[in-house]
Amino acid sequence: MKFSELLQQLELEVEIQEQHSLLEHPSCDPELLGLSAIEEAASGTLSYIEGGRFASQIQTTAASAVILPVDAKLQNQASQRQIAWISSPTPKLLFAKAVRQFYQPFQPAPGVHPTAIIHPTATLGSDVSIGAYCVIQANVTLGERVCLHPQVVIYPDVSIGERTLLHSGAVIHERTQIGADCVIHSGAVIGAEGFGFVPAAESWVKLEQSGRAVLEDRVEVGCNATVDRPAVGETRIGAGSKLDNLVHVGHNCQISPNCILAAQVGMAGGAKAGGWVILGGQTGVANQTEIGERVQAGAKAGLHGKIAPGSIMMGNPASPYRTFLKASALYNRLPELHQSLRQMQQQMAELQQQIQALEAAAQPETNHEI
Amino acid sequence: MKFSELLQQLELEVEIQEQHSLLEHPSCDPELLGLSAIEEAASGTLSYIEGGRFASQIQTTAASAVILPVDAKLQNQASQRQIAWISSPTPKLLFAKAVRQFYQPFQPAPGVHPTAIIHPTATLGSDVSIGAYCVIQANVTLGERVCLHPQVVIYPDVSIGERTLLHSGAVIHERTQIGADCVIHSGAVIGAEGFGFVPAAESWVKLEQSGRAVLEDRVEVGCNATVDRPAVGETRIGAGSKLDNLVHVGHNCQISPNCILAAQVGMAGGAKAGGWVILGGQTGVANQTEIGERVQAGAKAGLHGKIAPGSIMMGNPASPYRTFLKASALYNRLPELHQSLRQMQQQMAELQQQIQALEAAAQPETNHEI
Amino acid sequence: MKFSELLQQLELEVEIQEQHSLLEHPSCDPELLGLSAIEEAASGTLSYIEGGRFASQIQTTAASAVILPVDAKLQNQASQRQIAWISSPTPKLLFAKAVRQFYQPFQPAPGVHPTAIIHPTATLGSDVSIGAYCVIQANVTLGERVCLHPQVVIYPDVSIGERTLLHSGAVIHERTQIGADCVIHSGAVIGAEGFGFVPAAESWVKLEQSGRAVLEDRVEVGCNATVDRPAVGETRIGAGSKLDNLVHVGHNCQISPNCILAAQVGMAGGAKAGGWVILGGQTGVANQTEIGERVQAGAKAGLHGKIAPGSIMMGNPASPYRTFLKASALYNRLPELHQSLRQMQQQMAELQQQIQALEAAAQPETNHEI
Repeated sequence: MKFSELLQQLELEVEIQEQHSLLEHPSCDPELLGLSAIEEAASGTLSYIEGGRFASQIQTTAASAVILPVDAKLQNQASQRQIAWISSPTPKLLFAKAVRQFYQPFQPAPGVHPTAIIHPTATLGSDVSIGAYCVIQANVTLGERVCLHPQVVIYPDVSIGERTLLHSGAVIHERTQIGADCVIHSGAVIGAEGFGFVPAAESWVKLEQSGRAVLEDRVEVGCNATVDRPAVGETRIGAGSKLDNLVHVGHNCQISPNCILAAQVGMAGGAKAGGWVILGGQTGVANQTEIGERVQAGAKAGLHGKIAPGSIMMGNPASPYRTFLKASALYNRLPELHQSLRQMQQQMAELQQQIQALEAAAQPETNHEI
Repeated sequence: MKFSELLQQLELEVEIQEQHSLLEHPSCDPELLGLSAIEEAASGTLSYIEGGRFASQIQTTAASAVILPVDAKLQNQASQRQIAWISSPTPKLLFAKAVRQFYQPFQPAPGVHPTAIIHPTATLGSDVSIGAYCVIQANVTLGERVCLHPQVVIYPDVSIGERTLLHSGAVIHERTQIGADCVIHSGAVIGAEGFGFVPAAESWVKLEQSGRAVLEDRVEVGCNATVDRPAVGETRIGAGSKLDNLVHVGHNCQISPNCILAAQVGMAGGAKAGGWVILGGQTGVANQTEIGERVQAGAKAGLHGKIAPGSIMMGNPASPYRTFLKASALYNRLPELHQSLRQMQQQMAELQQQIQALEAAAQPETNHEI
Repeated sequence: MKFSELLQQLELEVEIQEQHSLLEHPSCDPELLGLSAIEEAASGTLSYIEGGRFASQIQTTAASAVILPVDAKLQNQASQRQIAWISSPTPKLLFAKAVRQFYQPFQPAPGVHPTAIIHPTATLGSDVSIGAYCVIQANVTLGERVCLHPQVVIYPDVSIGERTLLHSGAVIHERTQIGADCVIHSGAVIGAEGFGFVPAAESWVKLEQSGRAVLEDRVEVGCNATVDRPAVGETRIGAGSKLDNLVHVGHNCQISPNCILAAQVGMAGGAKAGGWVILGGQTGVANQTEIGERVQAGAKAGLHGKIAPGSIMMGNPASPYRTFLKASALYNRLPELHQSLRQMQQQMAELQQQIQALEAAAQPETNHEI
């Protein structure tokens, strides 16, 4: 497709502030065959530059068209190199929209594979796609156009909203409710028993987990991630929240809409996250933690207690990032600080001796005067 | 069921010290329809209060009956609000027993699904339940009432004890021995090859893993957790130990009975844990670590070497928790300490000058005296 | 097999410097029945001693034959105890070769199970083994002697090289390329969508992941590990690299040959690792990190930025290990340092007073002299 055709197909009203005049450079309307990362782009591809880090790539990239930030210097450099371009305050967002013009993810056609085992009490919406060897148990409800790749297992009493997609190896446990337009990736387990054991004299007594997991609309759960159900009540993940691979969400957690949990994050039982919270990879959240809205945690942070809205937290136990960055910079200098301290102790001892000498020198004189 | 009926069905001899007199408040024998968390309880439900944190909820909860700790104030508050109650030194434990009167987890009926593929050399105990698309390979032995949900795969030469439950997506590798009354959750992989590679000049040489994994009775393994087998010998998890989701137990680990490994804990090859060890979420245990009995590690701890029995450890590398708490409190004050140190260095320099001045002042006098 | 027969079957030219003379001790050619770890060896087994840690076991082990390092003391001790032995500069490597003489891992015979569902456009090499309930989708190519254990799912357009082994529960997503002689363990997910979401005003917009994951020859991916594909371009894992259980490799990561990623390591999007990098368990690598060749990171390290080749890194944020070890040793002494600092502040104040007193004492005299 021509670059100009692509631009017509994107909804550009909102986010584009400036636009390269194609008429002035008719040679700059390349035929685009695909997409590429800016640093490994081939001729005939569309790429994008988001921030400063990759800006210098405009000098060398072989991409034929680039989505740029609103930056006159970059625009000039692109024009000089005969690269077609368009500017946006959010280049990556525009690129995300452009990707869909070139690439549609693989999705099986509607239909139920003959090897799928579907309980007679299950209710299937129109145009569902159910792959080979799926197992759908009693009282399950699937909305319109729900798609199960092969080998998905759904336990009884589960409901799944319209257009939600489940990848091979996903397992959805009893009573789970999943909204519309969700994606459950391969190996993810939703609604399994929370980790509830009560100590007794001889061993641990199991607390049965009678609650359920609820995923609102547009939630994504990464590969091999786990979202547990609680003993009583709900574990809930708000609309539009996205969980990366190998994330663990414990029983009774309450995650508000539009949160991002990067890979290998763990949230212990009863932790709460406000809207738009972003947790970096391998972050741990202690049980009953209350994370305010729009909190961000750096990778490997350890959160506990109450975290004020908008905080940016780092470290374990986590601190506001400025505190953490100052402290961690000094951490490596601890040996030096220690050394300074010891030197000062020695100097101090010397000073004390000198002063005693001075005092002694002053004292006899005083004595002599008596 | 009436509250009074519930109390009759629980075995209350041991753990209950005090009991609300139902005869005095006949209106306080509510019909109970279900269970709830204290802070979100609806009328007609039973809840519990364990510790101080949730104690204030007794003033507002809509629960009709509550299991309380032995606490006269809470008992009075409950009575005044016409909430039926019973006291126990271990309210959560009693609640765990009460839950079973209201809720039975979903379990398929005995029987072998026609799509299950079972090797002719496998031995099945009476009343086993084998779900759709399970694959059971050569020389596997399943005890009485073992239950496999759909899509469980068992490699050859595995034995599984009575009443053990395997959820969909679990994979049990060759030679694994699993005891009675265990639960293997969805996606857990038991007895796969340990991570054994030996460096050679050109690449890594695989050390074949000829050993086996052994799970004793009443072990639980969480969703997508992994327990590896070793090159030689055994990886062993003691009776009554519970592993949460996404836990990794490396080859040759020896975990004693009644240990708790919270989510995303990792134990490297050959690590040992004594009885009743509790490891917080995301804790890492270095290879060959020896963890004494009843050690507790806080979330994200990094354990190595020998840990004395009964220690409570935090941080990475882990320290006794008192040390860690004091040190981590000062960590954030490092910039302040650094500032103090620099101020003192300046003050010290000033003092040195003052003393030199005093000495110089004293010296001339001495000289003058000569 | 006799010890002497075993030695004949191993290729000993290269790595063995010294060899026990079997002729001198004909009684020292035991019949070997199996393998064992040195500390739990039974009579009739072969074991090995690698380093100093287990050296004392030579005094007590019941092993009948031992592979020793080149160490005259150990050799003498073994001879005195009538233990057959051979010395190698790399005992564990020789043991790895010996293991294969006693133990062959379970592998299904070639053949396609009648329940396997194979798309007509798939191409199967000779002697492939495809287990029960496997699903192989359109345009998949399997090389000669590829082995799929039961319940493996392969999405369309995947190619898998000769002799590669996939364990039950593995899921390979669209367009993935896997080389020869790889092992994909149970529950591993290769080539699923990278975690790509772009913030917009109302929620997160999905960046479709049109790229692919590429595993070169001899790569191993552990149980429940995940390797994502990128939006554009490739995620690549170099030949001979080994990933342990529950490892996460994000979109666009580039891992060079012969790297080792221990359990629960996470590499965020676009991170690069040079050849022979070794990352300890639970290490996290920030996005776009560039790790030089032969870098080693201790367990739980947090890597970011550029890491110079050959560095040994520890801590989070990671530092060269000498720096980290010194700093972490002082970390626990922070309360003591703080205490010293406060003492010195007090001493300093006292000195200041003393000096003022001395100055005052000197001053009046001077004044008196005026």
